[in-house]
Amino acid sequence: MTARSPLAPKSFPKLPPIDGVRLGGASAGVKYKGRPDLFMAELAPGTVVAGALTRSLTRSAPVDWCAQVLKKGSARAILVNAGNSNAFTGKAGMEAVRVMVDAAAEAVGCKPKEVLVASTGVIGVKLPADRISKATPKLHKSLKSDGWSRAAQAILTTDTFPKGASASCTIDGVPVTIAGFAKGSGMIAPDMATMLAFLFTDAAIPQAVLQKLTTKAVDKSFNCMTVDGDTSTSDTVLVAATGAAGNKAPKKASDKALKGFREALTQVMTDLAVLVAKDGEGAQKFITVDVTGAASDKAARRVGLSIANSPLVKTAIAGEDANWGRIVMAVGKAGERADRDRLTVAMGGVVIAEKGEGVADYDETPVAEHLKGRDVKIDVDLGIGRGKARVWTCDLTHGYIDINADYRT
Amino acid sequence: MTARSPLAPKSFPKLPPIDGVRLGGASAGVKYKGRPDLFMAELAPGTVVAGALTRSLTRSAPVDWCAQVLKKGSARAILVNAGNSNAFTGKAGMEAVRVMVDAAAEAVGCKPKEVLVASTGVIGVKLPADRISKATPKLHKSLKSDGWSRAAQAILTTDTFPKGASASCTIDGVPVTIAGFAKGSGMIAPDMATMLAFLFTDAAIPQAVLQKLTTKAVDKSFNCMTVDGDTSTSDTVLVAATGAAGNKAPKKASDKALKGFREALTQVMTDLAVLVAKDGEGAQKFITVDVTGAASDKAARRVGLSIANSPLVKTAIAGEDANWGRIVMAVGKAGERADRDRLTVAMGGVVIAEKGEGVADYDETPVAEHLKGRDVKIDVDLGIGRGKARVWTCDLTHGYIDINADYRT
Repeated sequence: MTARSPLAPKSFPKLPPIDGVRLGGASAGVKYKGRPDLFMAELAPGTVVAGALTRSLTRSAPVDWCAQVLKKGSARAILVNAGNSNAFTGKAGMEAVRVMVDAAAEAVGCKPKEVLVASTGVIGVKLPADRISKATPKLHKSLKSDGWSRAAQAILTTDTFPKGASASCTIDGVPVTIAGFAKGSGMIAPDMATMLAFLFTDAAIPQAVLQKLTTKAVDKSFNCMTVDGDTSTSDTVLVAATGAAGNKAPKKASDKALKGFREALTQVMTDLAVLVAKDGEGAQKFITVDVTGAASDKAARRVGLSIANSPLVKTAIAGEDANWGRIVMAVGKAGERADRDRLTVAMGGVVIAEKGEGVADYDETPVAEHLKGRDVKIDVDLGIGRGKARVWTCDLTHGYIDINADYRT
Repeated sequence: MTARSPLAPKSFPKLPPIDGVRLGGASAGVKYKGRPDLFMAELAPGTVVAGALTRSLTRSAPVDWCAQVLKKGSARAILVNAGNSNAFTGKAGMEAVRVMVDAAAEAVGCKPKEVLVASTGVIGVKLPADRISKATPKLHKSLKSDGWSRAAQAILTTDTFPKGASASCTIDGVPVTIAGFAKGSGMIAPDMATMLAFLFTDAAIPQAVLQKLTTKAVDKSFNCMTVDGDTSTSDTVLVAATGAAGNKAPKKASDKALKGFREALTQVMTDLAVLVAKDGEGAQKFITVDVTGAASDKAARRVGLSIANSPLVKTAIAGEDANWGRIVMAVGKAGERADRDRLTVAMGGVVIAEKGEGVADYDETPVAEHLKGRDVKIDVDLGIGRGKARVWTCDLTHGYIDINADYRT
């Protein structure tokens, strides 16, 4: 096991219970031994679910299954294994999904089509689903409303720490809570941010509205985060709303009563996305890129991701080298409108280059000092419009090579 | 200096003289000491030039200048320095270009607008052009028709070996020759393949025809090669045709008489592109990706580049790990039409996966053996059309991180 990321928080946060949700983790021994590798949640009757799935054209069987369940939009259980992604496993892939959903449906007493599944791990190895079905009944009996930590641990692969976040708000004066957890460390890129994330809320929200809110929040959070630009075949974000809070259900995603909820949902997803970047394979530094002055928000995000995905920018930061020329390069290759002579680049809040050249009396001392820290800040202003975006990533180090040059063995 | 790439050829090839071209290299001390860092070529009157320049929106002043000269399409000299890219240097950038072109024009006795320039190296540091103008007269006196090796050395930066190639053919029965050299090691990606390359031929070809032939050949060679997906601000490919061979000038790029020339030009560019990939920063293995059965040639190239740019595929190969699941992932994220269940993946000629799953009786032994070698072959058939492309890259190793984490110091 790789050492815990130096960017990890001190401990897993205390997450509040969500009325209508019981969850936990168990060891099914799919690939890993001596650690939980199976996560299950039971959702109260009436729970609606929304999600965002990978846009990969070689997506896994579990993702195909989730797409079907999400069309209906309600679910009673989620079952997830780590260690094997059940991707590119031919017909056996969907057969393994059936074994998983049947086991969960039997335990919970619901229809198989009310079970969501996800699998993460190595691609192209047939999933021994019988180990999962065997472990499910006992796991189901152990579910409880405060099972967060064990659940979050059960979905990890190359992650070095479990990732959780929560927020609360009100809808029409009724307090509601959102809590969730995520996994992801390598093969992380937008479209959508390659990982698994499961969020739960007691808010009463119609499925169509929840789906819209989820899509928007994913766009502002997970889709603004990258580790290596690689998109996995298994990316899945699921949001389950039990309705137990008893608020008046809003009819539209744009409903004013949802202002707090929209912010809270985006906040929880952002917290999780940041944690994923902080656990990027081999990460030693967390990088926040703010792009302003772009032609549009979308253009700003593309420029930000071009910087955040550049191996040259990421290795320079790993080497604590204020090589801002590479940031200029990454802006230039993004394919979005840019004007060399209006571009401003800052690191650690210090303007290094502006108006098409380096600042004349630039003193590298404070920037060098900034780069020695764990949190690196890059600001780019394109000077041509009002579009802006914030993107998160980590540096590219020897650790990434160590982890990925020999993942399967 | 980094150790010579294990993928390098034994020696620099013997390149034939090109009638109408004299060339050489000298030490101007721009950044490097004790090695040639200035390349110059003098071209006979009447030489036409074509080129391909970076599409970066933050391109350098020398690239801006070349774009102007290429519009006219004739040139008498090329002057290139290594160690400083004269990119993102504000107004001083074009002033430095003027110093360079004036020096070359005076030495050769031509107009400044007949001089092409290129600069490669660090971004954002003002170019001490006076060192170049001071070194130019003596360099000009030393030019000779067999100055290839020194010229090729003078343009290197993080390269570990000089790269040259040549080919000959006939146009309407008249023998013509093409010879050239290139540099490039990191910040290498298509659009266009990030590097400098200079090709010379004695063929008589009208400028408009030469430009079309150049664009097509670049597309099939340099634009099919990647090291790290990063596009530089300085990419420049120039082709100069002196016309000294005395062949009848063809009127169209599609002229049948140009068949051999088209092939020879593409061959020389391909040889140089392959050498650049073999000198990829930290490269230990050379990777050839063949994509077939795609919806179009363009789609095939995008899929090939998605594989060739994937850090996970490249680190797996560095680790000699036959992790074909990552190839499936890279196909899925390319954004081109693909069908998981028609996809075939082979490594080293051994089919590993087909019809949406791993081959049942797959024996990894020959593939593992193949991956221990220096030349790695990946074949992907999408099974949906007739589009095909070949793409070249190298593996991603600790060497890349070592070189790039501390480039400037």
